[in-house]
Amino acid sequence: MRRGRTRRRQSREKARSGANLAPAYITRKIPYVDFLEEEALLRIEQHAEHLLRDVGIEFRNDPVALDLWRQAGAHVEGVRVRMPDGLVPQLCRTIPGQFVQHARNPARSVMIGGPHTVFAPAYGSPFIRDLEKGRRYGSLEDFRNLVKLTYSLPWLHHSGGVVVEPCDIAVNKRHLDMIYAHIRYTDKPFLGMITARDRAEDSVEMTRILFGAEYLEEHCCLMALVNANSPLMFDKVASEAMQVYAGANQAIIATPFILGGAMGPVTTAGALAQALAEALAAGAFTQIIRPGAPFVMGNFLSSMSMRSGAPTFGMPEPAMSSYVIGQLARRQGIPLRCGGALTAAKICDAQAAYESADGLHSTVMGGANYVLHAAGWLEGGLVMGYEKLVLDADRLGAMHVLLEGFATDDNGLASGAHAEVGPGGHFMGCSHTMANYETAFFDAVLSDSESFEKWQEAGGKDAQTRAYERWNSMLAGYEEPGIRIETDEALLDFMARKKASSEDAWY
Amino acid sequence: MRRGRTRRRQSREKARSGANLAPAYITRKIPYVDFLEEEALLRIEQHAEHLLRDVGIEFRNDPVALDLWRQAGAHVEGVRVRMPDGLVPQLCRTIPGQFVQHARNPARSVMIGGPHTVFAPAYGSPFIRDLEKGRRYGSLEDFRNLVKLTYSLPWLHHSGGVVVEPCDIAVNKRHLDMIYAHIRYTDKPFLGMITARDRAEDSVEMTRILFGAEYLEEHCCLMALVNANSPLMFDKVASEAMQVYAGANQAIIATPFILGGAMGPVTTAGALAQALAEALAAGAFTQIIRPGAPFVMGNFLSSMSMRSGAPTFGMPEPAMSSYVIGQLARRQGIPLRCGGALTAAKICDAQAAYESADGLHSTVMGGANYVLHAAGWLEGGLVMGYEKLVLDADRLGAMHVLLEGFATDDNGLASGAHAEVGPGGHFMGCSHTMANYETAFFDAVLSDSESFEKWQEAGGKDAQTRAYERWNSMLAGYEEPGIRIETDEALLDFMARKKASSEDAWY
Repeated sequence: MRRGRTRRRQSREKARSGANLAPAYITRKIPYVDFLEEEALLRIEQHAEHLLRDVGIEFRNDPVALDLWRQAGAHVEGVRVRMPDGLVPQLCRTIPGQFVQHARNPARSVMIGGPHTVFAPAYGSPFIRDLEKGRRYGSLEDFRNLVKLTYSLPWLHHSGGVVVEPCDIAVNKRHLDMIYAHIRYTDKPFLGMITARDRAEDSVEMTRILFGAEYLEEHCCLMALVNANSPLMFDKVASEAMQVYAGANQAIIATPFILGGAMGPVTTAGALAQALAEALAAGAFTQIIRPGAPFVMGNFLSSMSMRSGAPTFGMPEPAMSSYVIGQLARRQGIPLRCGGALTAAKICDAQAAYESADGLHSTVMGGANYVLHAAGWLEGGLVMGYEKLVLDADRLGAMHVLLEGFATDDNGLASGAHAEVGPGGHFMGCSHTMANYETAFFDAVLSDSESFEKWQEAGGKDAQTRAYERWNSMLAGYEEPGIRIETDEALLDFMARKKASSEDAWY
Repeated sequence: MRRGRTRRRQSREKARSGANLAPAYITRKIPYVDFLEEEALLRIEQHAEHLLRDVGIEFRNDPVALDLWRQAGAHVEGVRVRMPDGLVPQLCRTIPGQFVQHARNPARSVMIGGPHTVFAPAYGSPFIRDLEKGRRYGSLEDFRNLVKLTYSLPWLHHSGGVVVEPCDIAVNKRHLDMIYAHIRYTDKPFLGMITARDRAEDSVEMTRILFGAEYLEEHCCLMALVNANSPLMFDKVASEAMQVYAGANQAIIATPFILGGAMGPVTTAGALAQALAEALAAGAFTQIIRPGAPFVMGNFLSSMSMRSGAPTFGMPEPAMSSYVIGQLARRQGIPLRCGGALTAAKICDAQAAYESADGLHSTVMGGANYVLHAAGWLEGGLVMGYEKLVLDADRLGAMHVLLEGFATDDNGLASGAHAEVGPGGHFMGCSHTMANYETAFFDAVLSDSESFEKWQEAGGKDAQTRAYERWNSMLAGYEEPGIRIETDEALLDFMARKKASSEDAWY
């Protein structure tokens, strides 16, 4: 990374803040959960192969994609692509098992894949909510606030992408402001935009300005999220974004979004087989475009309310699918994005927390490598919540500890401590406690563990109210990581030219 | 079970209620989680053996217990009992790997141990809280309400014990009213009382009246919870209760309650070794009293806030210990009680739910057989919450589904469905969906998954408010399971005689 004049120097204050104490990403030290046995996993894999071979995947409105598939050896009929046995696994062989997504601050670069886990905030909500102003459309100011908060929250490793839709900016121009905010207000890695080919290209170009064109050619500095148009279909937006990002050697995260009973079967095994087929088809496609391009297989399975037909979140079926997609991804040797702190709740109440926690626990135990929607998600993704963001982020700290496991060496066993303390004694002052207590337990900042009386004296605030105070105080204390003035000027110049080159579009 | 005239017949309405659709207990169909490897487990086991052999366990103020240990081959010095290598494992060999706790309604009897999981409400709070009346001391009316609600909640299998302290009844007499409530207002199994020898004996006697003395001699109809006075100590209350219950062939659940840094080491491995030693010592003691008596090893590890020294709940260290104590218990072949929906939160807010959910998920995945505190717990156990009870219970339904796993047969894979629907199609009306949608997904009653607009029209209620409405409506619709009039009269007569035989004591 080039260094030079910066807009603002890192203060000594910031150097001591939590953000710098937390690791850039997690390296899992505990075993994986073998939810399904070999035979059952094979059945799902064989069903996925059958879907690719006999039913096929459609790539609509993108003749270039169809040509690429044809050249690679697939059977293309109209927009339907059928992949003979062996083709997809062979193509997927060049997908890296793990890779670095570089951040502009090298200490914040993340490992994607292998035993690593990376947390990112929620993505794609048109609405924003906070305790004071309630629910409203997201704005660029909200977007910037969320980037700043994510930068300040120690347990979020990644700045995410569309952390909320900046609805006050034209649809065809907001990608520029979003990418700029991710570059300017944080030094954590981020996602590029994908909603049209030129917006994907602009994302890559701005990242080139930041990192340098040569550096970008050899290093992954950007990931981008595309969804399958499930079942078994990719639209032009997705297939063109894949061409832009994989073509530039940047990472694609391809996520089948399957609401059981709508975009896929209501049974978990069937939905998983479909998700595997769709993700592998996307992975193979990126390798046709550029062998060795980084790729992440995504998974997003949701259940449905039998009372209303509405999508539900935090339910046991998606939890099981998180465990199993982890097994399937590891068998493929492909990095996995899945899960998150998902909920259908409208506010940050007990429902939101129950659903988010169950979803997150299984996501993490299941071995997800990149966890989008790890914080902030409300209302099935329609809303990003300020309070939800900081509350979820607090629980992500607990997940760091869980994935670290614990030691069973002499110190872990507290050898000698029981002889020192004796039956009926107290460990408070014993030498083992004195040597270990400072690092012994995770302490969630937003958990109030005080007595009822102390809690009441402090105002009897619920978690949501405490979270409101926390994000406001974090935002008030935010300090920019600093950026080279030349880089900043080049970015602003690029944006100005792009914005001037077309009329605003609002749909 | 004898049958005869009952106080109230089961209505047809009740026969259709959720309570009768839910299973009496869960039989796990998914694999266990191997959190620690063999070598690490061995180190913990060896450290537990060392504690039993070299440090020893104290049994205070109970010469009978010391005599029993001496006769069994332990080294007794003062009140300290040291157990030579092999003694405890040999004694524990007669502990049943699983057993039935009989309910007065045979359809509600539960399997304790093996691949089974049983959920019971929180235990031991002096305070109660609900949204209308706030926080206050528990009363007998609250106790009865909680028994009725637990009876009505489909995912709670067990009525528990001291669901709240009925503080308006004399300390030396309230056990009679509590046992009577568990017999009269529910037909689910329950726990006996232990706070003094005569109260334990009364609990057994009332259960004899219910089941018949001969039946009780051969069947476990009662379990009772004793805590170790950690570290490495049992007081007279615990050791006498063990003698009463095990002597009557009823089950003891012996739980080390270890707040790390106070009653045990701050490191998880050390706390686990201590907990294992304490539980095995209790288990061995029950087998000295009566070989083959049912026994459950308990575990309750809590972490501590580094900011205040207060106990914390729902944190990652206890979650890890739930995974590992499950491994340790299975290696011993002894049923396990651990975990629960624990929290330090004062009200049923997002903190309460996050902490409870993480604790419960690991409890269930870890393989706990009997889960006390599965619903209702607030404020580190000081408070039983009406809203918390029904909200937690809702999540227990999700745990049923998780432990059931999912099928990977042709129907599970939705064979043929993708060919029927085709790429880009919709699964709503396809034949596989039509055949499966009714049973496809768990739907949590208290989760609102409706749109924001519908939620707002319905009053914009948070989860706590919806829970308040639910428990009030459940209580209003409660119908007694009915009891034989002869049994009821015998119980009331026994209680009247007992109550008349001593003055009220209030401490």
